Amino acid sequence: MNQIKIFCPATVANLSCGFDVLGLCLESIGDEMIIRKSNEKGLRITNITGADLPLETNKNVAGVAGMALLNHLDLEFGFEIEIHKKIKAGSGIGSSAASAAGVVVGINELLGNPLHRKELIPFAMEGEFLASGSYHADNVAPAILGGFILVRSYDPLEVIKIKSPKDLYVTIIHPHIEVKTSEARSILPKEIPLKTAITQWGNLGGLISGLYTEDYGLLGRSLQDAVAEPYRKNLIPEFDNAKKSALENGALGCGISGSGPSIYALSKGLENAKNVADGLKKVYIKTEIRFDVYVSKVCDKGVIKLQ
Amino acid sequence: MNQIKIFCPATVANLSCGFDVLGLCLESIGDEMIIRKSNEKGLRITNITGADLPLETNKNVAGVAGMALLNHLDLEFGFEIEIHKKIKAGSGIGSSAASAAGVVVGINELLGNPLHRKELIPFAMEGEFLASGSYHADNVAPAILGGFILVRSYDPLEVIKIKSPKDLYVTIIHPHIEVKTSEARSILPKEIPLKTAITQWGNLGGLISGLYTEDYGLLGRSLQDAVAEPYRKNLIPEFDNAKKSALENGALGCGISGSGPSIYALSKGLENAKNVADGLKKVYIKTEIRFDVYVSKVCDKGVIKLQ
Repeated sequence: MNQIKIFCPATVANLSCGFDVLGLCLESIGDEMIIRKSNEKGLRITNITGADLPLETNKNVAGVAGMALLNHLDLEFGFEIEIHKKIKAGSGIGSSAASAAGVVVGINELLGNPLHRKELIPFAMEGEFLASGSYHADNVAPAILGGFILVRSYDPLEVIKIKSPKDLYVTIIHPHIEVKTSEARSILPKEIPLKTAITQWGNLGGLISGLYTEDYGLLGRSLQDAVAEPYRKNLIPEFDNAKKSALENGALGCGISGSGPSIYALSKGLENAKNVADGLKKVYIKTEIRFDVYVSKVCDKGVIKLQ
Repeated sequence: MNQIKIFCPATVANLSCGFDVLGLCLESIGDEMIIRKSNEKGLRITNITGADLPLETNKNVAGVAGMALLNHLDLEFGFEIEIHKKIKAGSGIGSSAASAAGVVVGINELLGNPLHRKELIPFAMEGEFLASGSYHADNVAPAILGGFILVRSYDPLEVIKIKSPKDLYVTIIHPHIEVKTSEARSILPKEIPLKTAITQWGNLGGLISGLYTEDYGLLGRSLQDAVAEPYRKNLIPEFDNAKKSALENGALGCGISGSGPSIYALSKGLENAKNVADGLKKVYIKTEIRFDVYVSKVCDKGVIKLQ
């Protein structure tokens, strides 16, 4: 095999009470990437569609992540990649992570999978570092492994995959506004009340428990964020109305995807997820803000080989 | 049935990263209680052995918890109880909770179980309020329900039972020193760094995950407390040496039981748990401090009917 075409999924990180530790992988939202072997060492980006991103390897998220892997593998040959972006940059559903995850999984596949998927995460994190200035795994790990991913620890890195309850669907609305990750981070307090922290980890425990037991009610009751959402929601116009609408339309829970501006809602069943989508559209259609709405299952596979 | 004899188990609350939300029930450490129907309304405590506790119903934890239940049930008759304490007061393994849990489960059993065990928790919490001045469920809920109990929320109260991995054993050492719950609480900071809180809930997520997947290694890596232990350990002489010894002797994890002074360790298998017990004894035998050591399985049943 000298060429591979892959689907690079979008992801939702900072799942409410799972702020900074829990993300999920989407099934029907994502980029495509073509990777082919080349006699020339290193990595060249030959084509990018759907976004205005640099072709220079060392300035491109996929380039940096791919090179981190290639430097580790020390091969006698190299790769060319085409990136076909469908996830909008800055949408808060892991656009950079999709590219970083895609390139490392794709190269690994072309080589016959010398590394386990979990071992690929640190290389993809190099791409995330280029994009955001911090090494975080809560988008790249779900993109690579699929399902729900708990990042238990960064030092050493330990990620835990939890299979998604089978009827769980995600609705995403992406209002076309800019939320700078740096601002979303800087408005968070450095210290939080112990009581608030306990509330948060009680809910996270409930959420993890609900995933294992497929208890949708428990998932819903646990999907609360006492820590980041009260601050970050102020960066997203109509957030309160959107959340109210999602819950009224049957969503189990609703919160900010990543650091925004996208809003995610989890629902039991496709029909509920679609109703939630309709409600969210109605909230934003009243405003000047343009938006995209998506409905997707949780993807338990991560990056997928298309051909 | 006019009389019942029950086993009222000891419990470990504040399980490291599960500070304030996670407790477990012990199988072979606990009190006994005899409860019999009486023609006279209300609740009388007729005998207490093993501890110097008040016989007056309204000053006794079991009395207050039992009366809370009786006031709810509004019966034409009453009960007499005998309490045979084996759990030492102030040991940090749920002595008051055992009495509060025992009385409500025992009365409910004698009445043919009109309430589900979960419904009994708020009445037992009345007993805990008498003992500590706060309504907490992290000892009474495991004592009533057995297994591991996550207190997801207090308002409304929601507790989640998680079955214990089958080879999990608990070692407890109770150094005979006094740790006042009020002091153990007052030395905790009111605010904690957000980063520390995230570390804690990452670990709690890992712990819950490890319980469902029976992944002992993950349990061990997750059993860390970045929040309370760094402060509270200073109230327990030899804590660092005890923890070091437990981990060197094969414990998965080790921490403070409740608000101390008891120290708990979890191990895979009885042999490991006994080795841990031997090591802990050696730490305290070098000191002037007297101690008790126990090894127990996690009890998945909670309060048990003996006859």
